[in-house]
Amino acid sequence: MYFSNMVTVCLLGFGSVNFHLATAFIASKKVTINCIYNRSEIELPKDFKDILFTTKLTEIPKADVYIIGITDDAIQSFSNSLPMSNELIVHTSGGVSIHNLNKKNRRGVFYPLQTFSKSSKIDFNKIPICIESEHINDTELLIRLARTISENVQIVTSQEREKLHLAAVLVNNFTNHLFTLASEITKDNNLDFSILQPLIEETVHKLKTLTPLEAQTGPALRNDKKTIEKHLLLLQDEQQRKLYKQLTQSIQNIHGKKL
Amino acid sequence: MYFSNMVTVCLLGFGSVNFHLATAFIASKKVTINCIYNRSEIELPKDFKDILFTTKLTEIPKADVYIIGITDDAIQSFSNSLPMSNELIVHTSGGVSIHNLNKKNRRGVFYPLQTFSKSSKIDFNKIPICIESEHINDTELLIRLARTISENVQIVTSQEREKLHLAAVLVNNFTNHLFTLASEITKDNNLDFSILQPLIEETVHKLKTLTPLEAQTGPALRNDKKTIEKHLLLLQDEQQRKLYKQLTQSIQNIHGKKL
Repeated sequence: MYFSNMVTVCLLGFGSVNFHLATAFIASKKVTINCIYNRSEIELPKDFKDILFTTKLTEIPKADVYIIGITDDAIQSFSNSLPMSNELIVHTSGGVSIHNLNKKNRRGVFYPLQTFSKSSKIDFNKIPICIESEHINDTELLIRLARTISENVQIVTSQEREKLHLAAVLVNNFTNHLFTLASEITKDNNLDFSILQPLIEETVHKLKTLTPLEAQTGPALRNDKKTIEKHLLLLQDEQQRKLYKQLTQSIQNIHGKKL
Repeated sequence: MYFSNMVTVCLLGFGSVNFHLATAFIASKKVTINCIYNRSEIELPKDFKDILFTTKLTEIPKADVYIIGITDDAIQSFSNSLPMSNELIVHTSGGVSIHNLNKKNRRGVFYPLQTFSKSSKIDFNKIPICIESEHINDTELLIRLARTISENVQIVTSQEREKLHLAAVLVNNFTNHLFTLASEITKDNNLDFSILQPLIEETVHKLKTLTPLEAQTGPALRNDKKTIEKHLLLLQDEQQRKLYKQLTQSIQNIHGKKL
């Protein structure tokens, strides 16, 4: 029997996640992308010019793995609309259960735990890829596929994955929003946001030696009421004052202090 | 006239900030620490054994700069209690005005914009040091002193500094607290917090090419109500649900959407 290491992949949808996955698969040279499907015509970047592109579901060729990379809300109905059956169909979402995929195909999840913007280059090598499937053979194939681009491949159930996704929202989306609020403050005072960059980097760097619980510092932890009051006066927006109070209280709750 | 490049410094208080400053001054070889004062006896680390240590204010020798590194609340009364006059006395706090220092001395601020834990090693070179004083000669001396340990020295007024300190609380204290909440979620689900590390690093890395406003992604920005509802169900603590809602709303406000 001839055993090929090459995995043939078909990408369904071409948003940020599938764009970055495709870039990594091509670089790995161990994966063949035999088709990119998208519901509307798109201008493919140069590296993808040689790959079959279609907007018609009926033109999708056979592949080892079909990877859905579309918005969470659309995954279920899109998987219902697929013409093939008994194929391995995976989605790439942190927040969608494996059971949202239609049962006529073998279902799976291929979730890279990362934030993707098309303009930000991604090195996949350290990115955890969270795998789920319903058959041991499919799990093995997905692990093999994931290992072509990352050394951090983990089996994660739908239940675990939704918790991970929640945690990811906290450390990425919400953290980034705090950066946004801070950048508004620096902008409003003609200061350069980059002055905060070393502090931001140290905040993350500390996690290598301390747990975040141990690394906590600041007026909330010290229950330094004077500083807290001053900061509330400096914030001009009622919404932001509420948020500041809420975060201060949450720090004090978890560290066992009372306001 | 003999002009010495050496600046003589006396450290008043030996908490995290002065410990890290002292370490950096010693490494620079351009600063002489002639005394460490602390109100209580402490065990000095090995590198500081040769420096005069005292718990008596009256025993403090003359120095070019006296650096107060004590808790914010105590700075004012401590500066009132100092026996010398017309000396250059600076504090290191982000949240305390220069006017909280007693006028009998020349007042200044030497604020390294960073978070300090005694156990985490600090490379000062990139850390912004925010300088303030009331006399041009003192400003020049403080800039010279700051440049012995950092290439990022900025003149920042008390008014600007309090805004910076607020921004620092957002990007450091509050961000670290979001990491803490995420680590609780992973712990409760027998997942390793380190699985989030690449995501956290990318969240910061993105700031090199995008503003945080541009880098925002996630269910709040997409107004993905299904995911937001699911996350609120997953959070077991009313306090944390409130915080999630508050942050979601704040993202939507700043990006011009309605819940």
